Amino acid sequence: MKLVALKAPVDRKPRADDFALIEAAPPSCPEGGVLVRVARLSLDPYVGSRLRGRHMGEAPPAPMKDAVPGAVVGEVAESRCDGLTPGDWVHSMDGGWCDIAALPGAACRKLDPALAPLDAHLGALGMPGLTGWAGITRLAEVGNGDVVLVDAAAGPVGGVAGQIAKLNGAARVVGVAGGVEKCALVTERYGFDACVDYKKEGWRDALAEALPDGLTVFFENVSADMAMVALSHARPYARGVLCGLVDAYHTDQQSLHPLNAGVIIARRARLMGLVVYDYYPQWDDYMRTAAEWVREGALVVAEDAVDGLENAPALFERLMDGRNIGKCLVRVSPLTA
Amino acid sequence: MKLVALKAPVDRKPRADDFALIEAAPPSCPEGGVLVRVARLSLDPYVGSRLRGRHMGEAPPAPMKDAVPGAVVGEVAESRCDGLTPGDWVHSMDGGWCDIAALPGAACRKLDPALAPLDAHLGALGMPGLTGWAGITRLAEVGNGDVVLVDAAAGPVGGVAGQIAKLNGAARVVGVAGGVEKCALVTERYGFDACVDYKKEGWRDALAEALPDGLTVFFENVSADMAMVALSHARPYARGVLCGLVDAYHTDQQSLHPLNAGVIIARRARLMGLVVYDYYPQWDDYMRTAAEWVREGALVVAEDAVDGLENAPALFERLMDGRNIGKCLVRVSPLTA
Repeated sequence: MKLVALKAPVDRKPRADDFALIEAAPPSCPEGGVLVRVARLSLDPYVGSRLRGRHMGEAPPAPMKDAVPGAVVGEVAESRCDGLTPGDWVHSMDGGWCDIAALPGAACRKLDPALAPLDAHLGALGMPGLTGWAGITRLAEVGNGDVVLVDAAAGPVGGVAGQIAKLNGAARVVGVAGGVEKCALVTERYGFDACVDYKKEGWRDALAEALPDGLTVFFENVSADMAMVALSHARPYARGVLCGLVDAYHTDQQSLHPLNAGVIIARRARLMGLVVYDYYPQWDDYMRTAAEWVREGALVVAEDAVDGLENAPALFERLMDGRNIGKCLVRVSPLTA
Repeated sequence: MKLVALKAPVDRKPRADDFALIEAAPPSCPEGGVLVRVARLSLDPYVGSRLRGRHMGEAPPAPMKDAVPGAVVGEVAESRCDGLTPGDWVHSMDGGWCDIAALPGAACRKLDPALAPLDAHLGALGMPGLTGWAGITRLAEVGNGDVVLVDAAAGPVGGVAGQIAKLNGAARVVGVAGGVEKCALVTERYGFDACVDYKKEGWRDALAEALPDGLTVFFENVSADMAMVALSHARPYARGVLCGLVDAYHTDQQSLHPLNAGVIIARRARLMGLVVYDYYPQWDDYMRTAAEWVREGALVVAEDAVDGLENAPALFERLMDGRNIGKCLVRVSPLTA
């Protein structure tokens, strides 16, 4: 089998040449588990933190030995667990950068290939989509008339958050993204009402223009500083979802991520921390609801895909630098065997 | 008439000798308003900020001219407005440090002296009580099984917050206060399950012991730093009410009041800003509910009272320094004419 591992421990933002593609002996099928032929691999920002031992207390993978962790979609090749048989398609958060994954049955969600394109299970129907959905519907409870601001809006989490806000009746959804191409994606394909390019001079004025009557909800995925920008546009009783602080994933010191409590009081704001793990039990429900939106074209996530495991490191470096456009995924092997 | 005014503008924490008791010509009864004989005057921390022009954008009173602003309970002496007649008792947030107040009818809430002791309208049934009630019932929605942490617990806001938390089914209510006497008040008269003295060495360990299973709700009235202490004990999905940051009312620069967004996310916390103004429309409803608790002795606020307007400045200085024990009020004139 092939896998991609770290060459050595990293204590900074990982780069493409931190990784090596290596050959290893194929794993045997574990008791109570399956062997999965990996077809699609998801690349996500949290993995950058995970590689440094900074994610939820989880240990980093062993250099030149363990596959880099990652979510996968694949086909069961061999099974020693009830409920999964060869030929079944599964999604697992516990996969990795490899072509064959040995997984416990409990770490696999069985997929129905007729429900939606299998690639969608890494984006709109995957962990990023579940995250956006949970923040918008379970925490902020977006409904009719809400005015919603979403940053990192071209990414799969922000993109889904904004689209689901619209699907739930939001009056106006405004995105923030970096660069002309990302902003075009957000307004043209994701259907946001406006998208402000934070790399452009005068972007704060542009944001004020895009929110002439302020906002009632914001979905924060970048930094505490951006949350404070959002709060400066908050109407009284605005709700804010604090989902991620990707800007600080690779800062040198553990940052304070300061939010100004006085502003929260003055705006009567309601801030809510989100960790998507808590919503895994609702994933299958979400998937069934969202699959219909995907089939209808009402929920779209752009893909930034490469072919072959050997190209995962370069795409991951682009993701770490925010140079990707849409959901990063690797086509490890074909969807039809 | 008599009134207490600032001698000169202040740009620091006010002290007793910043004030002067002066004689002035009695006001005439305003069109659509009343003249009120002030019986009780409330001293509250926000007035310290108000005197410096730091409170909700309101202008400070003119030195040697305007009475220091403050909530009052008094008896209508003369009326030129519908619905109020001489002999009626009223509460007003727009009174001042004076023995006769000229007030618009709309700034007065009529009181029923049979409902509860008139003094209670400055504490348990007054603005401090309404604040505690709003935070506990309307924002945090405290119910059965909640474990609630309240700081500034010996004060009227914190004291009411904790007692109403208990009345609403909280399993455990823990206070934080400064000094042995305040802590005894909190546990013995207010009925909190425990109170930690933050002036005592090892108080952080004592707090951890008082919250062996963490907290589900905190009511913050002191500082962002204390909110972070509370968050360090938060169970997942804990709710935090951000009510006041009195520790910073008289700091020299406008403080950042930093809350760590990363901790809010990790704890899945829900933080809510509270401004009591928003609940004034519900004040009469609250008053009727809480009056029953007051009559039954289920809701108690200790009073730190002095007699005579001339003693208001010294009591106010004690309040500014946190040396008061309970609700600060001034007996300006008798409750029975």
